[in-house]
Amino acid sequence: MNALKENTGYEGWLRFSKLTNANLEAEYRTFFKRLVMSEESEILGTAKEELVKGIQAILDTSLECSDQAGQASNIILATQNTKIDLVTTLVGDHSSQLNEEGYILKTDKETHSVLVYGKTDKGVLYGVFHLLRLVQTEVSLVDIEIVENPKNQLRMLNHWDNMDGSIERGYAGKSIFFEDNRFVEDFSRIKDYARLLASIGINGTTINNVNVHEVETNLITEEFLPDVARVADIFRAYGIKLFLSVNYASTIQLGGLGTADPLDENVRHWWKEKAKEIYSYIPDFGGVVVKADSEHRPGPFTYGRNHADGSNMLAEALEPFDGIVLWRCFVYNCLQDWRDRSIDRARAAYDHFKPLDGQFKDNVLLQIKNGPMDFQVREGVSPLFGAMPSTNQILEFQITQEYTGQQRHLCYLIPQWKEILDFETYAKGEGSPVKSVVDGSMYEYKYSGITAVVNVGNDMNWTGHTLAQANLYGYGRLIWNPDLSTEEITNEWVKATFGVDPQVVETVTEMLLKSWSIYEKYTSPLGVGWMVNPNHHYGPNVDGYEYDRWGTYHFADLQGIGVDRTVATGTGYTGQYFPENTSFYESIETCPDELLLFFHHVPYTHQLKSGVSVIQHIYNTHFEGVEEAEELKNRWLALEGKVDDVRFRHVLARQEEQAEHSKEWRDIINTYFYRKSGIADELNRTIY
Amino acid sequence: MNALKENTGYEGWLRFSKLTNANLEAEYRTFFKRLVMSEESEILGTAKEELVKGIQAILDTSLECSDQAGQASNIILATQNTKIDLVTTLVGDHSSQLNEEGYILKTDKETHSVLVYGKTDKGVLYGVFHLLRLVQTEVSLVDIEIVENPKNQLRMLNHWDNMDGSIERGYAGKSIFFEDNRFVEDFSRIKDYARLLASIGINGTTINNVNVHEVETNLITEEFLPDVARVADIFRAYGIKLFLSVNYASTIQLGGLGTADPLDENVRHWWKEKAKEIYSYIPDFGGVVVKADSEHRPGPFTYGRNHADGSNMLAEALEPFDGIVLWRCFVYNCLQDWRDRSIDRARAAYDHFKPLDGQFKDNVLLQIKNGPMDFQVREGVSPLFGAMPSTNQILEFQITQEYTGQQRHLCYLIPQWKEILDFETYAKGEGSPVKSVVDGSMYEYKYSGITAVVNVGNDMNWTGHTLAQANLYGYGRLIWNPDLSTEEITNEWVKATFGVDPQVVETVTEMLLKSWSIYEKYTSPLGVGWMVNPNHHYGPNVDGYEYDRWGTYHFADLQGIGVDRTVATGTGYTGQYFPENTSFYESIETCPDELLLFFHHVPYTHQLKSGVSVIQHIYNTHFEGVEEAEELKNRWLALEGKVDDVRFRHVLARQEEQAEHSKEWRDIINTYFYRKSGIADELNRTIY
Repeated sequence: MNALKENTGYEGWLRFSKLTNANLEAEYRTFFKRLVMSEESEILGTAKEELVKGIQAILDTSLECSDQAGQASNIILATQNTKIDLVTTLVGDHSSQLNEEGYILKTDKETHSVLVYGKTDKGVLYGVFHLLRLVQTEVSLVDIEIVENPKNQLRMLNHWDNMDGSIERGYAGKSIFFEDNRFVEDFSRIKDYARLLASIGINGTTINNVNVHEVETNLITEEFLPDVARVADIFRAYGIKLFLSVNYASTIQLGGLGTADPLDENVRHWWKEKAKEIYSYIPDFGGVVVKADSEHRPGPFTYGRNHADGSNMLAEALEPFDGIVLWRCFVYNCLQDWRDRSIDRARAAYDHFKPLDGQFKDNVLLQIKNGPMDFQVREGVSPLFGAMPSTNQILEFQITQEYTGQQRHLCYLIPQWKEILDFETYAKGEGSPVKSVVDGSMYEYKYSGITAVVNVGNDMNWTGHTLAQANLYGYGRLIWNPDLSTEEITNEWVKATFGVDPQVVETVTEMLLKSWSIYEKYTSPLGVGWMVNPNHHYGPNVDGYEYDRWGTYHFADLQGIGVDRTVATGTGYTGQYFPENTSFYESIETCPDELLLFFHHVPYTHQLKSGVSVIQHIYNTHFEGVEEAEELKNRWLALEGKVDDVRFRHVLARQEEQAEHSKEWRDIINTYFYRKSGIADELNRTIY
Repeated sequence: MNALKENTGYEGWLRFSKLTNANLEAEYRTFFKRLVMSEESEILGTAKEELVKGIQAILDTSLECSDQAGQASNIILATQNTKIDLVTTLVGDHSSQLNEEGYILKTDKETHSVLVYGKTDKGVLYGVFHLLRLVQTEVSLVDIEIVENPKNQLRMLNHWDNMDGSIERGYAGKSIFFEDNRFVEDFSRIKDYARLLASIGINGTTINNVNVHEVETNLITEEFLPDVARVADIFRAYGIKLFLSVNYASTIQLGGLGTADPLDENVRHWWKEKAKEIYSYIPDFGGVVVKADSEHRPGPFTYGRNHADGSNMLAEALEPFDGIVLWRCFVYNCLQDWRDRSIDRARAAYDHFKPLDGQFKDNVLLQIKNGPMDFQVREGVSPLFGAMPSTNQILEFQITQEYTGQQRHLCYLIPQWKEILDFETYAKGEGSPVKSVVDGSMYEYKYSGITAVVNVGNDMNWTGHTLAQANLYGYGRLIWNPDLSTEEITNEWVKATFGVDPQVVETVTEMLLKSWSIYEKYTSPLGVGWMVNPNHHYGPNVDGYEYDRWGTYHFADLQGIGVDRTVATGTGYTGQYFPENTSFYESIETCPDELLLFFHHVPYTHQLKSGVSVIQHIYNTHFEGVEEAEELKNRWLALEGKVDDVRFRHVLARQEEQAEHSKEWRDIINTYFYRKSGIADELNRTIY
């Protein structure tokens, strides 16, 4: 580790500190002597390198490397092609349980050996990172027998990086890929990034913004493809496929065709030739992400075609190379007239895409944001999940904290994502959670999975707020296996990042686990969302989007607030869910408090299930949220001396900002609603 | 006139079209034959050039030039130094009535001669432009006998141009002085600009923003002074002195002194040397404008000094060269806590400066915005006017339409400025209007006058909206003589700009005269102000500044709205006026409707003097305003064919935007107040 980077958070969770637990160290030393690997591949080479480096750092031991197992103390990296007796014995019949990316971790007490076995070399790499995590978090290796398969096939990230170096919705510095409209000169940071991603099982990423501007359109030309290929080379060694966001209108901007009509023969031909060209540089290119006909981006609508026409045209071009098309469903009218209450942006994705089910080629996936609006701190789950049995779907989360504090506030999102993945769609009756849609088990999807807008930039600690690294880590772990508990994931991350001191682990864990609830409390209440400053989306502004064109309203007046999305009297959005959910949300009796204002317009005096009125709930949660934000800071303060000084002070500064800024939220929201409703706080706390 | 510029509005009001009135042409031809001038000076040269060019264009006649009067048909340009008998005869005893910039225009029926006589050459230049205006607007020259003196000594403009070419609050393109952090290459446009300014009597201007950023700080160094001097040369020929905005902290940024303490000997010495340097390049340099301790600009407060200390230090340096310091009074707490209702930004200038009366050197002027807030469509008049008998004052208007439609809406400001100039301060009892403060007649000011933030950029028509030229023209004419009526000024401008067709004159005049009232109607009601989008200030946003740090609030709740600035129950701002005005504004009985919410917080049900309630007034004016904005467009439409096509279509596009955008204002403001008050429109018009 470069001295400059030490304790800055640059290592992230791959922070292999020297072990201080003497008993465990003794145990580990009985295992870690000889690294045995009888095959070679680029990814196996990575696995070996990571293991040697990690063990060196943790145990201060240089592993002896061999292609043959010794009598004892072997760490064997093996695949189905490995011909070593001990491997065959240890694997037994487990091998049939593995998928292409799965692995077995197993210790042999007799020989004090550890087997890391993958059906393929990617499995071995994931197994090595798992083994390192066990050691790093001080788990005994005696009696380890683990069989792991990723639940989701595509485990992706989306970068919203622009080639000028800026990042749309980036809160952690500039791009690690681009600067000054070209690629960065030093790619070493990209390799460090690939390590972090592989260690949590990410297997695909885009590197450029879904809003593909002029310069970025050229990424698929000979001007930039050699550089793109160099980045793909780095990721490939870590089992990660590279994807690009492409400009739907490339045939016009690059091809000089004058049209991007997906049914035009010249357009189709151009893309086929373009695909050939891309694959000549990057034989395992993953495919493309497309934002079309959305927020002023070009798309097939211009030519009277639909989204199936548009995406299939691209899919046809990528098909010969096993490339895929990730077609975003974030399509809505962004020039809405706020006066027209009959339009509901929440309906848009379903209305646009559901009727097209079955019309997409089998290498197209629809990329669907978790909610129907846009990554609010709380909103309904998109009704598209489960609604398209014949169309591949990939779920899109947002790790970058656009609406959740922009990595200046702490907001740990794993609990939110788990709720969404566990959301019961009733698509095939009870037991049809979202996670079963996107892992491909509910319908026969050829491709499916989860992606997310990442929170990484070139800040030394990658994510701005050091604790925001937990969102990236947790994302990877959760989409590997959505059945992992939040507590398991959090415990792993805290220990790997800050060590095993119980006070540190307990404090940081509690801070993370409470943070989403705290952020929700002092920001927008009861699922209503959007009370943020326009454009940059930081800080409170109750009417910020109320009279604008974005379809994002709360309709607060002196009597009440909320969006009536019922079938009976509102926009009918609730009718897009399967019947059980329709009636659940339709009825104010069953609709949960936390989403009440997302689905209903109610008086401020409406009594919540919690027993208090809507207005009193607003006041209470905003006062509580500030107190709890203050507590977050104080909890962290108590760790002084237990966390290295650089990271301690860095996190403290963010928690101080959050504690201060939460007051601004509290006072503006409370004052707004007090001035509007005229109803006093029952507890007579200060409202301005 | 360059063909490219023809009919674009580039000529402004110096649009010398060929005369079409045959009778008048015959009359004029009897006068315009020989131009007689027996002296020489740079400014006289300008006067001669302008007269020859103008008459050439209007009458298609080349004037014969001579230094001696002939028997008949002389146009004589003369000063007190001229030795021509006819001049002596014609001037008679009028010469004693003239000040340094005054002039006499007089015709001699017997010899069909016209005398343009100034005490100095500047008077001659102004007289020539007056003569040309008479001809241009088709006034008979028989029996002309005019004696004119400018009422105000300083008649200035402030440019808020940055050296990167941008203009703060500019709505007419980029800077005509700067681009890419240097001066423009072609100075010919600056000369055309100087002509326009001289024709309306402007005698001083700054060229750079009062917010003096890093590059602009260097304008007073050898890097840029040669260019500044070249610009000064151009202006000098038109009788205009050049001023600069300077960075108060120049001693730190340029001088490397580490301090800008005005009492520090090194600081004082540095500025004295700097003044010598500036005057070595520009012997008649006007002086400096300083925005100090305002909106994050540096100033004397940093060193525990006051504004007298700060400005006197600069004044001392400029004094040997007759330079002056224009010290802005726009000083307030721009980091205000919106929760603290006891602070009132409106009080700030008076509170800061009034106690310092008498402490300023006599070459310092306090530059005071017309109102205590910031150039709103309607606000009170600054109570500083008349309140500092021993301190020179200069009034600052804003021609650029920051808060009044940004030259996309029509808003003719002469009526507003006249109200302000005529405002009765009661400083010396009845008959103490603002105009008598700033023209120096009320107190013994060594320097005084009026300045304004100009609305000019490099758009072909200078001002974005062609009709916004009327604000610049009218400003110059009004500050020359605040007793001119709005109607006189408007009539001059319309005829000079669009010709004398009665339908055109009537229509454009009516559009201009009604426009301020229309803009006020559909924007912020009853003097409350500030209901605009933050930062750029275009378009409605009722709460845009309500919870911000700028001290700009309306305090609307479900019961009422307005800022209580009374002594009895509010911030005490009314107490800053002279007693007659204090009690006038203090009492809700006498406070005029149009400023009610500026001075009082009242219920929506409060009945106005007009007979309707506050809420009904809001609804009524907003519906009316939109109808009237539509009428503006229709009035203009009726001029098709009467105005050249280029200017016709250009103005039409702006009026169309205004008509459309006024609906956005109407609907957002009405909806906001309907949702907040719950009180329905008595006429049941559509509110959303």
